[in-house]
Amino acid sequence: MKRARAQLQAVPLEEAKRIFFAALTEFFHAREEEIPTIQALGRVTSRAVFAQRDLPHYASAAMDGIAVTAERTRGASPQNPVRLTRKSHFEYVDTGDPIPQKFDAVIKIEDVREIDTDTVEIYKSVPAGKHIRLVGEDFARGAPVVPQSFQLSPEAIAALLGTGNLTVWVKRRPKAIFIPTGSELIPPDEKPSVGQIVETNSQIVKGYVEQWGASITVHSLVPNDLEQIRHAVKQSLLEHDLLLIGAGTSKGRGDFVPQIVGELGEVLVHGVAYHPGHPVLLGVIERKPIVGLPGYPVATWLALHLFVKPLLERYYWGHEREFFKVPARLTKSIQSVRGYREFVRAKLERAEDGLYLVHPLQGGASKLSTIVGADGWIEVPEDIEHYEQDTIVEVSLVREML
Amino acid sequence: MKRARAQLQAVPLEEAKRIFFAALTEFFHAREEEIPTIQALGRVTSRAVFAQRDLPHYASAAMDGIAVTAERTRGASPQNPVRLTRKSHFEYVDTGDPIPQKFDAVIKIEDVREIDTDTVEIYKSVPAGKHIRLVGEDFARGAPVVPQSFQLSPEAIAALLGTGNLTVWVKRRPKAIFIPTGSELIPPDEKPSVGQIVETNSQIVKGYVEQWGASITVHSLVPNDLEQIRHAVKQSLLEHDLLLIGAGTSKGRGDFVPQIVGELGEVLVHGVAYHPGHPVLLGVIERKPIVGLPGYPVATWLALHLFVKPLLERYYWGHEREFFKVPARLTKSIQSVRGYREFVRAKLERAEDGLYLVHPLQGGASKLSTIVGADGWIEVPEDIEHYEQDTIVEVSLVREML
Repeated sequence: MKRARAQLQAVPLEEAKRIFFAALTEFFHAREEEIPTIQALGRVTSRAVFAQRDLPHYASAAMDGIAVTAERTRGASPQNPVRLTRKSHFEYVDTGDPIPQKFDAVIKIEDVREIDTDTVEIYKSVPAGKHIRLVGEDFARGAPVVPQSFQLSPEAIAALLGTGNLTVWVKRRPKAIFIPTGSELIPPDEKPSVGQIVETNSQIVKGYVEQWGASITVHSLVPNDLEQIRHAVKQSLLEHDLLLIGAGTSKGRGDFVPQIVGELGEVLVHGVAYHPGHPVLLGVIERKPIVGLPGYPVATWLALHLFVKPLLERYYWGHEREFFKVPARLTKSIQSVRGYREFVRAKLERAEDGLYLVHPLQGGASKLSTIVGADGWIEVPEDIEHYEQDTIVEVSLVREML
Repeated sequence: MKRARAQLQAVPLEEAKRIFFAALTEFFHAREEEIPTIQALGRVTSRAVFAQRDLPHYASAAMDGIAVTAERTRGASPQNPVRLTRKSHFEYVDTGDPIPQKFDAVIKIEDVREIDTDTVEIYKSVPAGKHIRLVGEDFARGAPVVPQSFQLSPEAIAALLGTGNLTVWVKRRPKAIFIPTGSELIPPDEKPSVGQIVETNSQIVKGYVEQWGASITVHSLVPNDLEQIRHAVKQSLLEHDLLLIGAGTSKGRGDFVPQIVGELGEVLVHGVAYHPGHPVLLGVIERKPIVGLPGYPVATWLALHLFVKPLLERYYWGHEREFFKVPARLTKSIQSVRGYREFVRAKLERAEDGLYLVHPLQGGASKLSTIVGADGWIEVPEDIEHYEQDTIVEVSLVREML
């Protein structure tokens, strides 16, 4: 029995990313589309957006009170009150009301004494513009409302609509597809017999890839057959910008994905020097990025965070976004392999001194339980073989802390 | 002309929340529903979920190699190799393959010398269980997969499906409705004339309330008319768990919402001692929470974060989630009013020394521009009237930093 062994590389992580991203200049050239602003929450602008009209578009009262001519209030004091007549000298206004054309300031109602229906007395002067919301004081016509490459928040949507921008140019969501391969895979609603595995990686891929801003299609399960995988890859290339291929776990299969990518395009990296999940494949076909995700769930999860997240961040922002990091004290020693970067899943706990304790989660690439319970990870550099218990390490927060 | 003035309270913020939440025991009693797991991403469990079957459900090879009986490898060494015969003593296995019944360990293919098609030699012994993924080693049948009140991540969805949980009990999303009131309001696709205001607060309310886990309906615009507002409130109570009423900015209107809430239920707090936006109303009708949001956009945004976010967090988690806070050095002095808590919107910038600089954003409750550009806020306590430039303050991160 011939045992063909895939020759895996051990390319350093940063080098692997550099090689991969350098081959993807076309992918990073963001395409744009114009969409209704009310559907644009969470999207990223492809152009700066400018106010189409002043906001506010008319001068209005910033307080409840009376609109007056500042000139006429001059010299008013408790000793020398000024009497004003409605219509000629003042008009009642509430917050938000337009200021009648001839007036230029507002006196708060608390500072006004009402003599009769049409007469008031005031006891201090006001300067022009007092308690008035000026035209364009929030956004002047032509002023930038949001810059380019800005992720639209609820208040940004409000500001765009308030300044007359009913549509907005945004970066198009890249279209990703995930192809789960492996003859042992069955859908979650079937009962697995010995040798069969319920395919659940697609849930991990789908959840994160959508969260990071791409649309995602999940391909039907593809058996571990050269022709069928090749067909699925070729078909997927027709309508997608990014192919994610689930390598599964079955026999000898490790060879098919590199072979297919090599035939149709180029394998850039096969094997990256990190654990768990180093047999990742990075390639390019028709200038489209291809990521071969190792089949164990933790390996899939980690490869997504290490390669697909930065890929989409570079698409949207031109640079990668770092995870937020917190220092924490290790509750157990951790081991690593020299020459490989180790990503140790970790759970944080607040210690009494206000610092964090960090519990490393044991278990290899196969254990979903180590990521379901994780807050983030500890990154052990290539030249370090272990951290003692009580070492202060940095924990990358992969998920928002509760 | 009679000028009825709403008598606003100045209830301290923590006290206002305490009064409000104490009246809402029924709202906080979470209702649950059973939904398909594949639709449950982001939802919060109402019960702990347990594995319906072992994951993995059969023993499998954790490495490519040969499955053996550990017993038979005993004493193997380079000086004393042990010969094994296929079928009787070993079988080839790849990662993920089931371990044939009679074997109990795996030897890595790198440690095996192939003599002929059916014979191998090994040079070291292995203990039972070596390189085998045991039944239930990720999740044993009956073991907890996720606890109660757990927000379902992509990997949690995978773990649920992998352990045979095709449906999951989750907390029902509270149904919220936002009622924008004000005769001056027009929809964003109409062109405003003097005195008209494009209604955009609904975008802010919708965006955040959905993000915090409630479903939200936006009511049609309601003119500032006692009967019409009362009708809208009564109708909204029929199908919603939480009413948010947009107070708008028009004349004398400040009186209608408290009056209606008082008639149909109870006004708990009207006026909270913070800026900007203190004329917030907190009430209860038919044991349902009612929040009257002041009409200026910044005031609406802040009241949502101060009252509605904690309300939904208490519903889902039984406690409030704090904003992440970072210390930063003020680039300008800030002023505040004694007795009021001031929320100063702020933009962060990384300083050269690795610390953050924080730029306070000027402008009152009317300026959307101060929240569109903000990363978070600085909270100035009630007993402090100003912070000098260069003071180190804490910035609450309302939005994830880029």
